[in-house]
Amino acid sequence: MDASSQAHVTAQELVDRFGGRIDGDPSIGIWRFMSLATAETGDASFLAHPRYQKQLNNTSASIIVLSDAQLARERGLTCTLVVTDDPYLFFAKAASWLSARACEAHPRDKRVHTSACVDPSAHLGSGVSIGAQAVIESGVIVDDEVEIGPGCIIGSGTRIGRGSRLLARVTICSGSSIGERVLIQSGAVIGSDGFGLVARPDRSWMKVPQLGFVTIGNDVEIGANTTIDRGTLDATIIEDGVKLDNLIQIAHNVRIGRHTAVAACVGIAGSAQIGAYCQIGGAAGILGHLEIPDFTTIGPMSLVMSSIDRAGKYVGVYPLQEQRAWEKSAVLVRRLSRFRRQLKQTGDQDT
Amino acid sequence: MDASSQAHVTAQELVDRFGGRIDGDPSIGIWRFMSLATAETGDASFLAHPRYQKQLNNTSASIIVLSDAQLARERGLTCTLVVTDDPYLFFAKAASWLSARACEAHPRDKRVHTSACVDPSAHLGSGVSIGAQAVIESGVIVDDEVEIGPGCIIGSGTRIGRGSRLLARVTICSGSSIGERVLIQSGAVIGSDGFGLVARPDRSWMKVPQLGFVTIGNDVEIGANTTIDRGTLDATIIEDGVKLDNLIQIAHNVRIGRHTAVAACVGIAGSAQIGAYCQIGGAAGILGHLEIPDFTTIGPMSLVMSSIDRAGKYVGVYPLQEQRAWEKSAVLVRRLSRFRRQLKQTGDQDT
Amino acid sequence: MDASSQAHVTAQELVDRFGGRIDGDPSIGIWRFMSLATAETGDASFLAHPRYQKQLNNTSASIIVLSDAQLARERGLTCTLVVTDDPYLFFAKAASWLSARACEAHPRDKRVHTSACVDPSAHLGSGVSIGAQAVIESGVIVDDEVEIGPGCIIGSGTRIGRGSRLLARVTICSGSSIGERVLIQSGAVIGSDGFGLVARPDRSWMKVPQLGFVTIGNDVEIGANTTIDRGTLDATIIEDGVKLDNLIQIAHNVRIGRHTAVAACVGIAGSAQIGAYCQIGGAAGILGHLEIPDFTTIGPMSLVMSSIDRAGKYVGVYPLQEQRAWEKSAVLVRRLSRFRRQLKQTGDQDT
Repeated sequence: MDASSQAHVTAQELVDRFGGRIDGDPSIGIWRFMSLATAETGDASFLAHPRYQKQLNNTSASIIVLSDAQLARERGLTCTLVVTDDPYLFFAKAASWLSARACEAHPRDKRVHTSACVDPSAHLGSGVSIGAQAVIESGVIVDDEVEIGPGCIIGSGTRIGRGSRLLARVTICSGSSIGERVLIQSGAVIGSDGFGLVARPDRSWMKVPQLGFVTIGNDVEIGANTTIDRGTLDATIIEDGVKLDNLIQIAHNVRIGRHTAVAACVGIAGSAQIGAYCQIGGAAGILGHLEIPDFTTIGPMSLVMSSIDRAGKYVGVYPLQEQRAWEKSAVLVRRLSRFRRQLKQTGDQDT
Repeated sequence: MDASSQAHVTAQELVDRFGGRIDGDPSIGIWRFMSLATAETGDASFLAHPRYQKQLNNTSASIIVLSDAQLARERGLTCTLVVTDDPYLFFAKAASWLSARACEAHPRDKRVHTSACVDPSAHLGSGVSIGAQAVIESGVIVDDEVEIGPGCIIGSGTRIGRGSRLLARVTICSGSSIGERVLIQSGAVIGSDGFGLVARPDRSWMKVPQLGFVTIGNDVEIGANTTIDRGTLDATIIEDGVKLDNLIQIAHNVRIGRHTAVAACVGIAGSAQIGAYCQIGGAAGILGHLEIPDFTTIGPMSLVMSSIDRAGKYVGVYPLQEQRAWEKSAVLVRRLSRFRRQLKQTGDQDT
Repeated sequence: MDASSQAHVTAQELVDRFGGRIDGDPSIGIWRFMSLATAETGDASFLAHPRYQKQLNNTSASIIVLSDAQLARERGLTCTLVVTDDPYLFFAKAASWLSARACEAHPRDKRVHTSACVDPSAHLGSGVSIGAQAVIESGVIVDDEVEIGPGCIIGSGTRIGRGSRLLARVTICSGSSIGERVLIQSGAVIGSDGFGLVARPDRSWMKVPQLGFVTIGNDVEIGANTTIDRGTLDATIIEDGVKLDNLIQIAHNVRIGRHTAVAACVGIAGSAQIGAYCQIGGAAGILGHLEIPDFTTIGPMSLVMSSIDRAGKYVGVYPLQEQRAWEKSAVLVRRLSRFRRQLKQTGDQDT
């Protein structure tokens, strides 16, 4: 991101667009946002968490977005402040706007790279760009203003909605349906076969054919190297506004409700039904054929083994200890039922 | 999967091929299988788990495969039933057969795409198809009827057995050996370097050269974005019939016995020896240089830290709790050795 | 690795180069290293762990590198021994040297494959090779002697340092900086967007623009399908000598100190600061915005939930049990606070 490629914006313009009030010179201008530690004159920055307050002491930012002007003034800061209740949301909006404005100044190349292989039966809308070495198979429908990065492979019969962006080397398997304004990071695989097996009498496995598909709603983000399997007969469904981080596994016939966010390394087993507005912590696991209600939070590295009846925050993590202490506690965890017997002998009986 | 592309089949033909008995009209025909919830007239469906019994009330399927005809009749269902002990196995066989028949009607393109780069020294058998943008390096041997998807990269000296299918964007590193009828999903990497390190006196790491290879047996399935490292000097071995789900890590010199199934997100460390007919739950971990006997089941998100002596079901998962309850229990888990001392003071001495 | 392609080397030459002392015939020659179990006449092997002592009984190796000659002689071995304190380090050095010598005899093809797409504005140093179907975007700088494998995609403005090797199908997103002698395995994604979200008042998520980059030091190794996100505004930093295994997730703004090794399937959340010379066990998790000091070891599948104050070995894993025993202990773990109350009633009060 080259600062000089972005047009200058004043504190007044920022507040006019994104709210907040100015404490300082409203005519001061910035080119971009940087962190407090790295901002220079001509940059804006923000303070969103008390953890980073000490960085106020040494910043060179020309504008700082924060929620408490007094805090900055007490530390002797003389730069212009923009005071707002949610500095992080302000930053996200302002930096997105600056970034989009910079991109307009350098419009992307809306064309099909000569090395891409596009099947003649595919339909490409207007303003579509397709990167080098990409493959678009038969019957694919790409709506207007879609960007398909280099090395992407779009399987036959897939539909990609308006304004979606696939970064480099995304794989979409046949028959998938991708909504509008979806962003898919590199290496993601959408529509791989589900892990459907049935035991033969000799205990070898027979593959269950995976004939369904994947449906991705609007405004979904899918992280790098994340995998989403197709349904066995119906669809695996990712609803509008769902955000998936990197290296997540979504098995066949899962449904994830709208605006649920899933952190990296999570695994969700087949046919699990996750509600809307949930937050699933990193490396959590969710077993198959169960339901999680709307507005549920699952802690990191916690395993959901059965349906959850009511929304809440759920955790299941062995606490970290120094190795020797862990060795003792882990031995005793295995002996808890012996403990209980002893307690019953020595104390009351209702445990 | 376009229904019209599949030939019509009657209940009688299904039973003649796959067993079971008919309760209803044997001449009724179906085009395909769908789930109970989405099946329409002209579709077959199945009931394999009591969880989905309620869907019998609203299904429009023309044929339902299940194990208990009375159950369906009590709910007033008038469609034709196929009664069999294992409806899921029946479905898997019948749907596979229907799917294969549909594919025969639309034979795949058995040719090398013009954009693929095939080294002149590679040997391609008859009926081989190679997708767009694929790369086949020197000395590769591809047996008859193999499908290599778009964007696949097959490293030098690799051999791929008859009838195997590599979906889009699979990477096989040099010197790998892939059996017959193997199915590899997109993004999988076979034959990457093992994580072999040796500490130098200054505590920096020296890489141990990874000179071995990977051997995959027949009828193996490998999931999307799964990684299998080559052996240091010998082979990493995946035996016949093993099924690996997505995002699994198999380290160098691991051996997985035949017909073992491994769910998604599992990590298996170097030189672990996994028996035959095992089932490894999702996100489980298996440390290195240990042995797991045949017919062992490991629960999801459970860590195997030492060899297992006898087959059985093993689990090690902290139970999920509401966050406040977890905070209390986790604090107490760390204090279990203090508990024990108290017990010894108050009760008997043999804990 | 074809033995005949490697030049013959004697025990004396090995000891002259890599230390140790010879017990046996110094003129005996070998072509390569193999494991004790698979070595034949003309191969060297090594014994680095007592676990493999029994393999001494049946090996056909001509030279064995080990730390205890008497052990081998007692088992009747008559081959030449090379005695050294660290046989694994000796093996790593000698096998690397043999492997490099063999490669010199078959120099790699230092050219740009005709199917690669290299932007005219990219700068390629001398001795650079670029594989089939690779994509090099605008403004990329590739230093001398870099190898870029088939199917790699190098985003605009990336710099790759001298002697680095990217195996097949690596994705480097725009603006990344890769040091010298870096090795990146297939499927890795460097520079994907971080998972930056901010809740809107209606509880939908707004994406925080990810405008930073990734900086990789010298002598770093990155495993297959590992993902490293770019910083939000600054850099995600992987320092010199760090070794990352497969399927690891490194979130935005993480810093990993030099010579830290991270095993497979680990997830490190945003802004975590990992010290130098740490060892992170497989499938461990590290939450965001915390610090881990130099020389810290984290056990496998253990979750670091807060900063660690002093170096040490830390573990947090529920012990593996047979399923029935686990069911009992897990129930009781959830009841530990009730236990404590009972103990307080029956025993002393200081728990």
